[in-house]
Amino acid sequence: MASFCKIVKRFYRANKPIKPNTSWPGYRNVLDITNPATLKKVGELQEDTIPDIERKLEYLHTGLKRWKLTHVDQRKAALEKFADALVTRKTTLAKILTSETGKPISQARSEIAATVDRIHYFVENCEKVIGTQTVLESSRLKEKVQYEPLGVIANISAWNYPYFLSANVFAPALLTGNCVLYKPSENASLTGQEITDMLHNAGIPEDVFVISSGGADTGSRIAGNKDIGGLFFTGSYDTGLEIAKKASPNLVKLQLELGGKDAAYIRHDVPNILATATTVADGAFYNSGQSCCSIRRIYVNKRVYVPFMEALKKISHSYRIGDPTLEDTYIGPLCTKKQVEKIGKLLAEAINRGAQVDVGGDTTNSTAHKVGYFVPPTILTDVDHQMSIMRKETFGPVVGVMCVEDDDEATTLMSDTEYGLTASVFSKHLEDAEAILNELKVGTGYWNCCDRVSPRVPWSGRKRSGVGSTLGIDGLRAFVQPKGFFCHEPMAAI
Amino acid sequence: MASFCKIVKRFYRANKPIKPNTSWPGYRNVLDITNPATLKKVGELQEDTIPDIERKLEYLHTGLKRWKLTHVDQRKAALEKFADALVTRKTTLAKILTSETGKPISQARSEIAATVDRIHYFVENCEKVIGTQTVLESSRLKEKVQYEPLGVIANISAWNYPYFLSANVFAPALLTGNCVLYKPSENASLTGQEITDMLHNAGIPEDVFVISSGGADTGSRIAGNKDIGGLFFTGSYDTGLEIAKKASPNLVKLQLELGGKDAAYIRHDVPNILATATTVADGAFYNSGQSCCSIRRIYVNKRVYVPFMEALKKISHSYRIGDPTLEDTYIGPLCTKKQVEKIGKLLAEAINRGAQVDVGGDTTNSTAHKVGYFVPPTILTDVDHQMSIMRKETFGPVVGVMCVEDDDEATTLMSDTEYGLTASVFSKHLEDAEAILNELKVGTGYWNCCDRVSPRVPWSGRKRSGVGSTLGIDGLRAFVQPKGFFCHEPMAAI
Repeated sequence: MASFCKIVKRFYRANKPIKPNTSWPGYRNVLDITNPATLKKVGELQEDTIPDIERKLEYLHTGLKRWKLTHVDQRKAALEKFADALVTRKTTLAKILTSETGKPISQARSEIAATVDRIHYFVENCEKVIGTQTVLESSRLKEKVQYEPLGVIANISAWNYPYFLSANVFAPALLTGNCVLYKPSENASLTGQEITDMLHNAGIPEDVFVISSGGADTGSRIAGNKDIGGLFFTGSYDTGLEIAKKASPNLVKLQLELGGKDAAYIRHDVPNILATATTVADGAFYNSGQSCCSIRRIYVNKRVYVPFMEALKKISHSYRIGDPTLEDTYIGPLCTKKQVEKIGKLLAEAINRGAQVDVGGDTTNSTAHKVGYFVPPTILTDVDHQMSIMRKETFGPVVGVMCVEDDDEATTLMSDTEYGLTASVFSKHLEDAEAILNELKVGTGYWNCCDRVSPRVPWSGRKRSGVGSTLGIDGLRAFVQPKGFFCHEPMAAI
Repeated sequence: MASFCKIVKRFYRANKPIKPNTSWPGYRNVLDITNPATLKKVGELQEDTIPDIERKLEYLHTGLKRWKLTHVDQRKAALEKFADALVTRKTTLAKILTSETGKPISQARSEIAATVDRIHYFVENCEKVIGTQTVLESSRLKEKVQYEPLGVIANISAWNYPYFLSANVFAPALLTGNCVLYKPSENASLTGQEITDMLHNAGIPEDVFVISSGGADTGSRIAGNKDIGGLFFTGSYDTGLEIAKKASPNLVKLQLELGGKDAAYIRHDVPNILATATTVADGAFYNSGQSCCSIRRIYVNKRVYVPFMEALKKISHSYRIGDPTLEDTYIGPLCTKKQVEKIGKLLAEAINRGAQVDVGGDTTNSTAHKVGYFVPPTILTDVDHQMSIMRKETFGPVVGVMCVEDDDEATTLMSDTEYGLTASVFSKHLEDAEAILNELKVGTGYWNCCDRVSPRVPWSGRKRSGVGSTLGIDGLRAFVQPKGFFCHEPMAAI
């Protein structure tokens, strides 16, 4: 515990801003950092002002001149060293993450471990999208294409997977020669500072990666700046929309990785109901349902509805909810009070309209947990698409289940959403599952699995789930732009 | 002439809307189509209303269901047939193009001929960006990536190269399985109708490619629609900005190919001054300077300034200006009155501030051409970057020339612009030219050439010149989006 305490301690001291803010002038709004499990203050955050952001961007533009010419091997070495630090410091980093987001400690460690794999993927594949290609070579004319970085990119990140979501942007960005203005979520700012320190220690120059502190206002200030070569935002649809509007006059390259209202369909021919229910429950409740691709809606064929529901309820009851620092806790608190209130309202509306609470449903701390933003795993039945809980993004451990007649009804209901992130079909036959998944406007389809992300597979959303892709080769390509060269041999002097 | 007259005749008839408008209800604004060389009315255009656009998009969404599943060979065959029609009908099509845009007839034919090459490029390369890739294959899990069309895309095009610019979008879009709502510029709508008819005749179904008629209002109505999967605009920065703002709430994939303020630098070691001046004059004045990548600014090293200017003036004087239907006309009228007025104002401001008119300069028809929007090739010296003519997009046959000390001064002046489309360096040594071109924020660099586009080389802009790329593999990739698949073998029944 010694090392963890020492690291966190510096953020606990009142009025001590997170560096490098000390050197920036002007008034700053100060935000409290609260542990969502204990409601104790764990630090403070001074928000960047517009001049702060301008000066940071200017600083990054000086760094860009060198960084874009730095050999890719050196960039790769720095990212590998960063990945090594994640491995070495995993236990400490997980505790910090849990202290500010409430993520159960074992899930925090898993996220950090898996981030290492992503970094390796990007390091191994980054050279596929850089370097010069000759597309024509004739006696007098040569046509070449060079792929160059976008410039200084803004990485406005989220708190639910602060390692994954920031690394999805900064790792490919840095490897392909971009500089990064990194704004972690205000709810994951201790982690954001750790990431920044580790990158600098690993050899990323201070003027190549700069942290920006603050909440939505800071994000909005960054989004409106015209010195940005690319704007990569991860978060909610509502905030993404504001970012898009703010950025649009600058004609900046914009990528938005937003949320979903992801559906799972349990087909009549599902071969293993218990295994399926286990997978689906995990997809709905892992990280307390605070994933962009959490299962929010479950459609179950009438032929397997009863046994599936029985299994689902049993599994959901088995989850340990409580203190996120304990090893066997599966459900921790939600990250913010706002989320608890939002879910409370959506539940009340659904119940008023006739929804049945089969499991959970209490957002008022009537469990053993008298403090903290706890919401138990909640399963609603007798729901329909008139209810907001089946339409709006919930971002908590709440799922609605409906019984369906057949594939057609399931497909229609799954499609009836403004979002389009992922969808899953549980079935014996891949062909039948793919036929349904191909019909749906989603970026990712799952057969017999859900809530899964791979560094190798591009991650993209349709409709309100966003624009652009991270991960995979597309997620590397997103950070470079082509520069064409036409080289014409000079004619001899007359 | 018979076939040409017959074709154009149907547009001459008063109150006859361009099909398929006849079937759409509601009031429509009517625009005149004017021949810019004769100022005679050559047709009328009824603007699409918002319900028109909504119904057309709905129609396209029905087409999409079939088209995205149509085999790529069938899509390729249709585009090849369209290319064949361009070859067969080149003479007639060129006359129509000249009649509405004023483009000199030989340049109109060249554009149509070169469009055929682009189509071939897209047909030959489209399969590189579609099809499924397996990125992981283990005993229980398979990860696949499928590339699917964006959906119904909007192709809002420009009048200066109506074949090139529309084909850059609709050809890769159709080949990769998208449907297209095509709005040609109101100043190239006869051509737009020809393109539509030829595509339908070549086998592109009517609900896969639909024309939308009108001017800026129509473009804005399309841009604001949320049923669009991708918005591809080619035109001015000002209009592009409006499109971007209008589209931003819909989180649509947006590409803007906008204008430039492109610079050429004549280095002290340029080996052939006459050939260079010929190339640069052509880059400035071809298509009456109405190219996004026309040369607008020339920086000449002081050691070659005098002979270069002498050659440039001589060549510029040699151009035949006048009736665009004549074979040897090199400079036709500008396309619109608005452009002539804009250039007139910019010239007046520059002259007031001390600019010298070395060649041309008259926008008031004091030449032999008493009617029509004629502006002669115009070369200004004694200019500086305080003058709007060196900063704003002119889009006409006007170029400013400055004498520079060395590479540093040239690089600084070339960089001093809000645009970033292309730049060219004329020099004996490729290395020296590339060192300068790499410094500049432009999408395309030229060594000993300029104003050149290749189907093989991605076309992209920096800053106010736009976002995204057309042409090359990137220009095909722009029309597909990844869909990830995670296929997990079912566990055996318990």
